[in-house]
Amino acid sequence: MARPQPLSGFPEWLPQDRVVEQHVLDVVQRTFELHGFAGIETRAVEPVEQLLSKGETSKEIYLLSRLQQARQDSGATSRADKQLGLHFDLTVPFARYVVENAGKLAFPFKRYQIQKVWRGERPQDGRFREFAQADIDVVGNGELPYHYEVELPLIMAEALGKLRAIGLPEVRVLVNNRKVAEGFYRGLGIDDVAAVLRSVDKIDKIGPDAVAGLIRDEVGASESQAAACLELAALSGTDTSVIDEIIDLARRYDAVTDLLEEGLSELRQLLAAAADRAPGTVVADLKIARGLDYYTGSVYETVLVGHEELGSICSGGRYDTLASDGKQAYPGVGLSIGITRLVSRILSAGLSRASRSVPTAVLVAVLDEEHRGNSDAVADALRARDIPAETSPTAAKLGKQIKYAERRGIPFVWFPAGVTAMGEQVEHQLKDIRSGEQAAADPLTWKPSGDDQWPRVTPVQPADD
Amino acid sequence: MARPQPLSGFPEWLPQDRVVEQHVLDVVQRTFELHGFAGIETRAVEPVEQLLSKGETSKEIYLLSRLQQARQDSGATSRADKQLGLHFDLTVPFARYVVENAGKLAFPFKRYQIQKVWRGERPQDGRFREFAQADIDVVGNGELPYHYEVELPLIMAEALGKLRAIGLPEVRVLVNNRKVAEGFYRGLGIDDVAAVLRSVDKIDKIGPDAVAGLIRDEVGASESQAAACLELAALSGTDTSVIDEIIDLARRYDAVTDLLEEGLSELRQLLAAAADRAPGTVVADLKIARGLDYYTGSVYETVLVGHEELGSICSGGRYDTLASDGKQAYPGVGLSIGITRLVSRILSAGLSRASRSVPTAVLVAVLDEEHRGNSDAVADALRARDIPAETSPTAAKLGKQIKYAERRGIPFVWFPAGVTAMGEQVEHQLKDIRSGEQAAADPLTWKPSGDDQWPRVTPVQPADD
Repeated sequence: MARPQPLSGFPEWLPQDRVVEQHVLDVVQRTFELHGFAGIETRAVEPVEQLLSKGETSKEIYLLSRLQQARQDSGATSRADKQLGLHFDLTVPFARYVVENAGKLAFPFKRYQIQKVWRGERPQDGRFREFAQADIDVVGNGELPYHYEVELPLIMAEALGKLRAIGLPEVRVLVNNRKVAEGFYRGLGIDDVAAVLRSVDKIDKIGPDAVAGLIRDEVGASESQAAACLELAALSGTDTSVIDEIIDLARRYDAVTDLLEEGLSELRQLLAAAADRAPGTVVADLKIARGLDYYTGSVYETVLVGHEELGSICSGGRYDTLASDGKQAYPGVGLSIGITRLVSRILSAGLSRASRSVPTAVLVAVLDEEHRGNSDAVADALRARDIPAETSPTAAKLGKQIKYAERRGIPFVWFPAGVTAMGEQVEHQLKDIRSGEQAAADPLTWKPSGDDQWPRVTPVQPADD
Repeated sequence: MARPQPLSGFPEWLPQDRVVEQHVLDVVQRTFELHGFAGIETRAVEPVEQLLSKGETSKEIYLLSRLQQARQDSGATSRADKQLGLHFDLTVPFARYVVENAGKLAFPFKRYQIQKVWRGERPQDGRFREFAQADIDVVGNGELPYHYEVELPLIMAEALGKLRAIGLPEVRVLVNNRKVAEGFYRGLGIDDVAAVLRSVDKIDKIGPDAVAGLIRDEVGASESQAAACLELAALSGTDTSVIDEIIDLARRYDAVTDLLEEGLSELRQLLAAAADRAPGTVVADLKIARGLDYYTGSVYETVLVGHEELGSICSGGRYDTLASDGKQAYPGVGLSIGITRLVSRILSAGLSRASRSVPTAVLVAVLDEEHRGNSDAVADALRARDIPAETSPTAAKLGKQIKYAERRGIPFVWFPAGVTAMGEQVEHQLKDIRSGEQAAADPLTWKPSGDDQWPRVTPVQPADD
């Protein structure tokens, strides 16, 4: 093959960068497990009609066809085979999994799911077409208590907060509540709530004036109604005083409704709990709308402080009708970390680095090929005690074998006991190739420091605090 | 949505079964890392011409198209966009990754890769169309020492051997060497070596007589040549005496060649090392051919003892020309565990079970919603010490809360300190719901036993030894 070129939108990492990604995945997964979320995976494909039924994502779907069948049928799909597409998120497949397996699951069902998803974006847009997401959701059978809408964003904030140890900046979880927005819009006399939400969702992209225009033109709202929508969207704050501002605004426009008050009560609970459990992390931001139709309560976005232009790295919300078998609904709440977006930024901004590109802590040198077994035995003894070790590829000159370790960041080289070419009996010796120190060592008892046993991921710049 | 049905060929596990799969993946991954293999992932897609260039797999490929584009173009692919297909294994993408990144990798490059692959099999065949593989490969720059052909199957045997602790039977690694087969066939005067290998690969499916017929009909071999090929394929053994039998056979047919002798020398080394390091595990089996054209030395298959009809669960071999940029070749050797095939058998045969379906070790009860914060604080304190804990979904009657734990196999329920509805001050109490024992406990110091802290996977039938 000629040297292949990367495919736009399909990122791949070199080994040392994958160490960073693996660390991020491990921290996130462990956090989810500590909170009792069960891990599942769903298949990569769903019937296309299933993917299309969740609205406004049709342009992004990759369809599958079988090569042989395509040749036989000239591209037509056989009736026997449902048209399949690659999933574009993990929420829609999870909703299907819940309904399909409802009889075998215990509700409320808390699951995490870490998988790749695909979106058939136009390659020239520079977006990812394949990327990893890490989701948590809780789904109830018929009902789901509000407190999960408080807990889940805090779990995500905890997971992302643990990554400050590898150099990630602080995060801010921006929250809103659909009931507040819908209650306020209805109080204003606007019926097409979804259209207003879609417009408000564009504030950061096109600015408030253009959004006001959209609300007037597409929803048919008056100047005053549009202005009120934008006044609401401009409110934000970390403490519950923002609730009072919203009530004042609604009173001023005579737009107080039961739904608004229900939403404000929920938002107040969330802010109070967050102020207690993760001070400064959660911000009520009334312009957070989320494009998806299916959210019915809290909605969330998350920004990296100092990297706000990256957009949200963790989003989600409460949904009441996404999963339903017609008789029974399974309301849920969930959030999704965009792992690839996050890791890509960590790498491109040089925030973190891996201490080495391979797991190996010890390279065992080979003095001559005839005695490779001696070196293998040392490596076996180290691995039996959970110390990653490998044997040198060849019995090259020792300087070359040390170079093999250096190029990979392997900290130690082991020279096994044996008889040299000169007939001299030598004992086991271990060299720390960073300091150059060399000393006798026993393969049955020697241990590296905890920092050296496995590759570590550390900040490139030490954190200020 | 109506209740969805599973899609044939796309397996999904329930949470308790995913615990078993996750355990298998953890054991395998850890073994690879202890041996110094770096983890990478490659994108799920490759240009179709790349997938097709590796022979005889064209019928299995899933092609991708974008829904919106398909509507615009009536199914034709735009020139700007390369036709992409889902990868059907991890070897071909890895070869591409090596060539693409050769300048940034250190050789010999040892990597592991655990990902899903897809094959567009006809659904009625009952085969998996999506499944996970766990691969290790070592690739050299221009050259690769033979000893890796000895080490890699032993690493796989070690990984699979560790799964005996969860009830997996013993494995047998069946090995052969293409140089032996090719050297022998050429010594017989047969030139179309690939065709004979493809025929011999069918012995277990269609029987030796039918294979002899194929060799005569398709290769144009004589009765005697075909008989000799089958005599070779019938040889097997764990010790090096099988080498002597092969030499005797070749002498009898006057088919000794330099290539045969080179292959026998390699096979002898492999058997000797295996007898030393993993006695009884590796069996020379001269009928192992592997369908793929690109193998040039050792080839491997692996069977589960007592489940031989399942076919190979771990296969691979040595390849010399798979990865090449035209100027430089990157010879390699690798094996791939069929994780989904293996886990599917573990589950369907009831070999292993998970101690619970969720990570949670402790459910913290909620006495009334007003004091949910007390329960959250207990759970936080436990999680801070790496003990998976969750707070009860509702302040239901305690019996109902205990039932929540029972249904999920959560071993402990924590009753937080507080003031009861009767105004009585109570202290922290912990109940082991398996024994019913209840005692005072401190959230800052209590620990579960190591067996209870995380879900465990154990054999359903204790192993005999």
